Amino acid sequence: MISVEEALARILAAIAPLPTVRVPLPEALGLVLAEDVIAREDIPPFDNSAMDGFALRSQDSKERQGQPPRLKVTGTVAAGYVADHAIEPGTAMRIMTGAPVPPGADTVIQVELTRHGGPESDWVEILQEVKPGNNIRPAGEDMRHGQLILPRGSEIGAWEIGVLATLGWASVPVTRRARVAILGTGDEVIEIDQPLQPGKIRNSNSYLLEAAVRRAGAIPERLGVARDTVESLREKFSQAINADLILTSGGVSVGDFDLVKNIMSEQGEIQFWRINMRPGKPVAFGHIGAVPLLGLPGNPVSSAVTFELFGRPVLRKLQGHTHLLKPQIEVKVEDGVQERAMRRHYVRAYVRWQDGKFVARTTGHQGSHIMTSLLQTNALLIVPEGGVVVQPGDTVQAIMLDWPENAS
Amino acid sequence: MISVEEALARILAAIAPLPTVRVPLPEALGLVLAEDVIAREDIPPFDNSAMDGFALRSQDSKERQGQPPRLKVTGTVAAGYVADHAIEPGTAMRIMTGAPVPPGADTVIQVELTRHGGPESDWVEILQEVKPGNNIRPAGEDMRHGQLILPRGSEIGAWEIGVLATLGWASVPVTRRARVAILGTGDEVIEIDQPLQPGKIRNSNSYLLEAAVRRAGAIPERLGVARDTVESLREKFSQAINADLILTSGGVSVGDFDLVKNIMSEQGEIQFWRINMRPGKPVAFGHIGAVPLLGLPGNPVSSAVTFELFGRPVLRKLQGHTHLLKPQIEVKVEDGVQERAMRRHYVRAYVRWQDGKFVARTTGHQGSHIMTSLLQTNALLIVPEGGVVVQPGDTVQAIMLDWPENAS
Repeated sequence: MISVEEALARILAAIAPLPTVRVPLPEALGLVLAEDVIAREDIPPFDNSAMDGFALRSQDSKERQGQPPRLKVTGTVAAGYVADHAIEPGTAMRIMTGAPVPPGADTVIQVELTRHGGPESDWVEILQEVKPGNNIRPAGEDMRHGQLILPRGSEIGAWEIGVLATLGWASVPVTRRARVAILGTGDEVIEIDQPLQPGKIRNSNSYLLEAAVRRAGAIPERLGVARDTVESLREKFSQAINADLILTSGGVSVGDFDLVKNIMSEQGEIQFWRINMRPGKPVAFGHIGAVPLLGLPGNPVSSAVTFELFGRPVLRKLQGHTHLLKPQIEVKVEDGVQERAMRRHYVRAYVRWQDGKFVARTTGHQGSHIMTSLLQTNALLIVPEGGVVVQPGDTVQAIMLDWPENAS
Repeated sequence: MISVEEALARILAAIAPLPTVRVPLPEALGLVLAEDVIAREDIPPFDNSAMDGFALRSQDSKERQGQPPRLKVTGTVAAGYVADHAIEPGTAMRIMTGAPVPPGADTVIQVELTRHGGPESDWVEILQEVKPGNNIRPAGEDMRHGQLILPRGSEIGAWEIGVLATLGWASVPVTRRARVAILGTGDEVIEIDQPLQPGKIRNSNSYLLEAAVRRAGAIPERLGVARDTVESLREKFSQAINADLILTSGGVSVGDFDLVKNIMSEQGEIQFWRINMRPGKPVAFGHIGAVPLLGLPGNPVSSAVTFELFGRPVLRKLQGHTHLLKPQIEVKVEDGVQERAMRRHYVRAYVRWQDGKFVARTTGHQGSHIMTSLLQTNALLIVPEGGVVVQPGDTVQAIMLDWPENAS
């Protein structure tokens, strides 16, 4: 048996990021930038006003014989327009937030610190002395021409989209999404819209994995369920030749994996490991032709957990991410874990923030066929190898899968 | 000025969840279940084997005169099939993981604890006594016929999809996704593929909001940019009559909002607030006809932050969620917040897990036009009203926007 870390390292060593494609900006959400983004302009592009007010020369704001100075208002600069004349000594212009500061002015006073005769007034009294640069956002204060703004490898979230739009990147070079072929296996597996028959169960894994693949930003394609025959498997694999990854579930226990193994040997190569973990001991990795294949166990819980530990990091690496693993924190386990497992045990648990720390409660029965336990799970507690018992109140490492929203 | 809490409460009071629609299971990902899911069968549907091994009567596993009992193997039960005969005393059947336990057998022994003559062997020796129920997963152990499995209001993640598939829910009743019309405003705003001209800036807010709306699970539609005229606004709003929410950015500062306000009064009703917060003081809420409208500020940072605080909870409520707010935790602020703001201050920061606690570092310049500060932000520190200064090392509440992956 090999360790989880060794299995993951071996799998990731065989995975390289996918090619770069250029997509329209809105489609770049969640993808990884494939080139450095350098500002080709100053942002803001021009000195502009942070307030609605009056643009003037700061020296004109000084009191004269204890009286507020009264200036002639020569016009208005609205956002989106430029002044058609300059500020001369003794004059001011009405200016709106975001409008370019007119030539000659070196400061802006907000409207609340002035007295004037209304929106069309041709005079304004300056009630407070203002310094040069007051309420002015200088050109380039946010981004400078030539500055590296987003390095290659950055994940593009909503706010990165905003920055790219500001810089005029209407399309963006990204590492493309992975296409993932998902294959169920086993004569016992029927489609989800079928009534149950004796000995049969429904194909839950393919749908679960499809959703998990989509959550990881990749494009899933369900190939259905292969029967337990060479012909059926060969036919299904032939549909996956254009995929970037094949995910199988089931058919990787020691006895019955021979079939898939034979086909992989025939069409590519296979590594098959018993991994020192629970749930999910048997995991296969290899290639069908040039397409990597990750073979997950058939038990729904094992399939779900091994996807998180091995499948999701593979998809993130394919899609250009450098941070591949879910965050890991320490949590206090309220109820402890009494069940001894000699293998590394990933215990399903619900973690919440309480009184300044994270507290976990396990979901109870950890059998790999107890799917309902997944419904209360937002974290996997890591119980180390060797039959460790976690006492109530002990602290363990937890992989956070999800961080749920607060009630409003 | 009203508080953030009061503004949010007033907005949410005007929002009701959208109607229920039935969608194919794979499309339910991220949506909210609109009906209780009750199991209509036992899961597992039948007693089945947890191991590859032999099914037998437990009493036949007892030693006889110090010798392991030798049983006649009468056949094989593979997964997906049922035995065509029962286990009689003194006999056993080969059984695969997941296969139904044949009638007459009350236990399964794993293959490693037997001796036999190969895969076709017609005899097996039982090397260890086994108890009734050993390696048998009883029917209904995971879910029982009639049991409430997922209550209405549950968010459907990948693992819920797996459970729904198991139960045969090929389609699912969900609260439907919200359609969101997104409108930029202002004569200064040009499209993102246009070269900059004097006084102009690119339409970053609409793209940022489109991405944020999509991240919230809703369907965005960009309507472009309305000019600062009644006609242009009226024409744009006429395109939004089928939306579930209109999001505008810009045009809500005190001076220039009159235009939008007039149209809202003409076509619906408007509430306009100065909210006691920074960034993002002015926020408008009302209706155009029957469509709710949320008017966000024009500064990119203010727009991004007010969307998180007001827009995202609105979308979650529309889409049937009951947990509307991002998680909030306490963090230690390494560099403190020296800038005094009399209003509630949402300070952009990067939070990381270090030595068993969360530590924050602010992103520096908190001006609402400094978009690059958003790129380092994964949390908003909440500095209370009243000009509080946060000293280096102080603890504050933080809204966690994102919890980034670990390096592998």
